Amino acid sequence: MVNHIPEHRGSAESRLQSLGAKLPSAPTPFGSYAEVVEAGGLLFLSGMLPVVDHEPAYVGKVGKDLDSHAARDAARVCAIGAIAAARDHLGSLDRIKRVVRLSVFMAATDDFVGHPSVADGASDLFRDIFGPDKMAVRSVIGVSNLPLRVPVEIEVTFELEP
Amino acid sequence: MVNHIPEHRGSAESRLQSLGAKLPSAPTPFGSYAEVVEAGGLLFLSGMLPVVDHEPAYVGKVGKDLDSHAARDAARVCAIGAIAAARDHLGSLDRIKRVVRLSVFMAATDDFVGHPSVADGASDLFRDIFGPDKMAVRSVIGVSNLPLRVPVEIEVTFELEP
Amino acid sequence: MVNHIPEHRGSAESRLQSLGAKLPSAPTPFGSYAEVVEAGGLLFLSGMLPVVDHEPAYVGKVGKDLDSHAARDAARVCAIGAIAAARDHLGSLDRIKRVVRLSVFMAATDDFVGHPSVADGASDLFRDIFGPDKMAVRSVIGVSNLPLRVPVEIEVTFELEP
Repeated sequence: MVNHIPEHRGSAESRLQSLGAKLPSAPTPFGSYAEVVEAGGLLFLSGMLPVVDHEPAYVGKVGKDLDSHAARDAARVCAIGAIAAARDHLGSLDRIKRVVRLSVFMAATDDFVGHPSVADGASDLFRDIFGPDKMAVRSVIGVSNLPLRVPVEIEVTFELEP
Repeated sequence: MVNHIPEHRGSAESRLQSLGAKLPSAPTPFGSYAEVVEAGGLLFLSGMLPVVDHEPAYVGKVGKDLDSHAARDAARVCAIGAIAAARDHLGSLDRIKRVVRLSVFMAATDDFVGHPSVADGASDLFRDIFGPDKMAVRSVIGVSNLPLRVPVEIEVTFELEP
Repeated sequence: MVNHIPEHRGSAESRLQSLGAKLPSAPTPFGSYAEVVEAGGLLFLSGMLPVVDHEPAYVGKVGKDLDSHAARDAARVCAIGAIAAARDHLGSLDRIKRVVRLSVFMAATDDFVGHPSVADGASDLFRDIFGPDKMAVRSVIGVSNLPLRVPVEIEVTFELEP
């Protein structure tokens, strides 16, 4: 078992503890929208940005202002925001059955090629918390620019336990 | 209570009337697809463009050909199209429980920063019709270009009353 | 009845046979994600790229490196991948009720205008297999760049038979 992928045991809540990932407070909207909506057994989340305390923690274009490693970190911060938003709404991550769907949008230069590695910054965190047998489908898209000039935005849909 | 946000009372249909928003005829496809599909208690809509009578009402790039205010108007026209499409399919907006999910794609210059304000053009209309307690999750993405050279396209999913 | 749109008779499986579309092996991930996830009666698929045997079959930007026709072919290869992934998971296409939702992202030059025609490369295949009364809603978006430098990526959601 590779060192940075701890064995998957116990609940998502206990995994979150053992990863030592400290959850920030849940994100708050930048406009007329909700962070979380529950419908049809699914939990839909707003596009998560790499923000901390409502301020962008990463700014710029991937392949110019940030390299792959920094962009990967930004994707992880987005994923932490998603987990904080879901936990704030649900009370506990153990009400989540799995991540269903993950779209990763990154503001990248035209010649950038490391998309999957950047997106893994979010995917790997979800895998470590919810387990390798609960991985989401994923789309990865290179775009022109994102709100607040952040380099990465992720769209997440969770499935809830019945 | 701010003047342009009327108090939310009554049904979506009655709100639509009191807003004085005149619905155009429902949009029709530009290719091999449907405007509306119902599945699993949700109503999925095709990407709505700011078109009137199958012709683009706004053309160009946000931050170059259009400023934030014009782009915000374009987003509102997209949202009106979504409401017209849903109403055409359902018969009445009162069959809609809420907007679940809204993605706003805007063709913007690389240095554009006013994304949330543009997206509010759509979100605010939905809020005024369905109520501030029924707001959707939202993703906002700056892209290179959109069909028919329109500046904004929105993707909307509604939840239906059981 | 137009020649290239065969009459819709029989099951999706029998239509696939009669179209002579040879399915490749199901796609495999380029990162920490799953190709297919089933939830709430829907089948979510990862963003499908025009890859054959895990290698891109088309590379470059639409409007510069590829024209509309080649990009349309690339979109069709994406759709074939989606069908291969769904069939691999379900055992038979006849468990699919319809395509619910199709998003087509294309890496296009800023002045490209043929988006709907490119997207029809995917939509037309789905129509021919699942029938013209089962068409999906669709969003089409022009973006900066896509993983592996492919010109087109599609996001597909199927509804399953109960």
